[in-house]
Amino acid sequence: METKRMLGVLGGMGPMAGAAFALRLAALTPADRDQEHIPVLLLNDPRIPDRSTARLAGGEDPLPAMRAGIEFLNTSGADLIAIPCNTAHLWYDELAEASQCPVLHIIEAVADDLRRQGVARGRIGLMGTAATLALGLYQRTLEQHGYECIVPQDDEVESLCMTSIRAVKSNRLDDSLAPAVECVQRLRARGADAVVLGCTELPLAIPHAVRPSLGMVTTDSIDALALAVIEHYQKAGKLATHRD
Amino acid sequence: METKRMLGVLGGMGPMAGAAFALRLAALTPADRDQEHIPVLLLNDPRIPDRSTARLAGGEDPLPAMRAGIEFLNTSGADLIAIPCNTAHLWYDELAEASQCPVLHIIEAVADDLRRQGVARGRIGLMGTAATLALGLYQRTLEQHGYECIVPQDDEVESLCMTSIRAVKSNRLDDSLAPAVECVQRLRARGADAVVLGCTELPLAIPHAVRPSLGMVTTDSIDALALAVIEHYQKAGKLATHRD
Repeated sequence: METKRMLGVLGGMGPMAGAAFALRLAALTPADRDQEHIPVLLLNDPRIPDRSTARLAGGEDPLPAMRAGIEFLNTSGADLIAIPCNTAHLWYDELAEASQCPVLHIIEAVADDLRRQGVARGRIGLMGTAATLALGLYQRTLEQHGYECIVPQDDEVESLCMTSIRAVKSNRLDDSLAPAVECVQRLRARGADAVVLGCTELPLAIPHAVRPSLGMVTTDSIDALALAVIEHYQKAGKLATHRD
Repeated sequence: METKRMLGVLGGMGPMAGAAFALRLAALTPADRDQEHIPVLLLNDPRIPDRSTARLAGGEDPLPAMRAGIEFLNTSGADLIAIPCNTAHLWYDELAEASQCPVLHIIEAVADDLRRQGVARGRIGLMGTAATLALGLYQRTLEQHGYECIVPQDDEVESLCMTSIRAVKSNRLDDSLAPAVECVQRLRARGADAVVLGCTELPLAIPHAVRPSLGMVTTDSIDALALAVIEHYQKAGKLATHRD
């Protein structure tokens, strides 16, 4: 297909997060009719082997399937790629290397979103998968940007973060809210100035409507990545709507 | 890409509806982890010319772009196609003809959903785009199934249905609810036993949480199409989860 611009999305990790990303991208785009929105090709492939299991328990390597997805999006006409899965960014360098077009980095998008929300320094509470947290995916980047990170204890990662994430992945959204909110509150009690929902299942666990009641800034890694896409196309002059 | 099963979705009409369809498909699939979900390739291409304008006002023909999308999904490995846009089904025969794999029909999916919800006969209120309603897309099929159809008056199609649909397409969800609910209530007052949200923007205008307060059965064309996909893969033995 010939395209002037088309966002390729390597999704399916999990499938609800991939679809929610496409939905939030449409919702956040300044557009007045269909034709002003960003064309998106979403490969929502849930068969990609589990990222956390691969990194922490010697499970099947997801890189070949992710690389094949990146190559497919490139040959299908993508001129930019987004990967709405935080843990997948443990393989970011290999995926960016496999792509002819730029691949956005979700952790950088979250750091940008913290500044966008007025949190330019301070202590950032991190939530995410066991692999994302144990392997320091956020810590490296946020400390480079001058933030201090507060990470849940190992038992909290399992009983709060992973319990919430697994509930979303198995379509039990009602069960996902309480453990996620409990984790936010514990991080807040330990001095966090803001909390990163650093797994794309977590924004589904804590819906937008609930967040004002949390009493602190949260950064939603789905929305942050969608805003990074919109900014990319705006800067490239490829998002010219009547509102510009 | 090699695939055993992959749903191709011709979306973007509008983009929020295409993404919402992928989200609802994930939410409605009986799955306990990522790998049990249905792989989806969503071509969310909002550049497809407007369907209603083409049919009612001599606008640009959307068929070439839709046909190119169907062909792209086929060559990319889709073994089933869904099109989450009711109006696009005015070209269903041409699109099914262009596809090597089966293309689900959203109107049939809605008729199945009416029976699933216990409405096996009676008067069905129709909501949709001007083109969907004026060209009898639902009326033909539902009358074949033995239903009687109640259609909004021309001025109501414009002031209620189209006003709500345009609000969704331009990301003004807050403005989309009231006109859609008003249309449901008028159809109910005229004796409708159930109302079809027969444009994929309308389920976004009237969120699931609001529907119980409407006091009547509504059929959501996004959910109906998602359930048709799940049934298709279940019947083909391609949705084997631990819950089976």
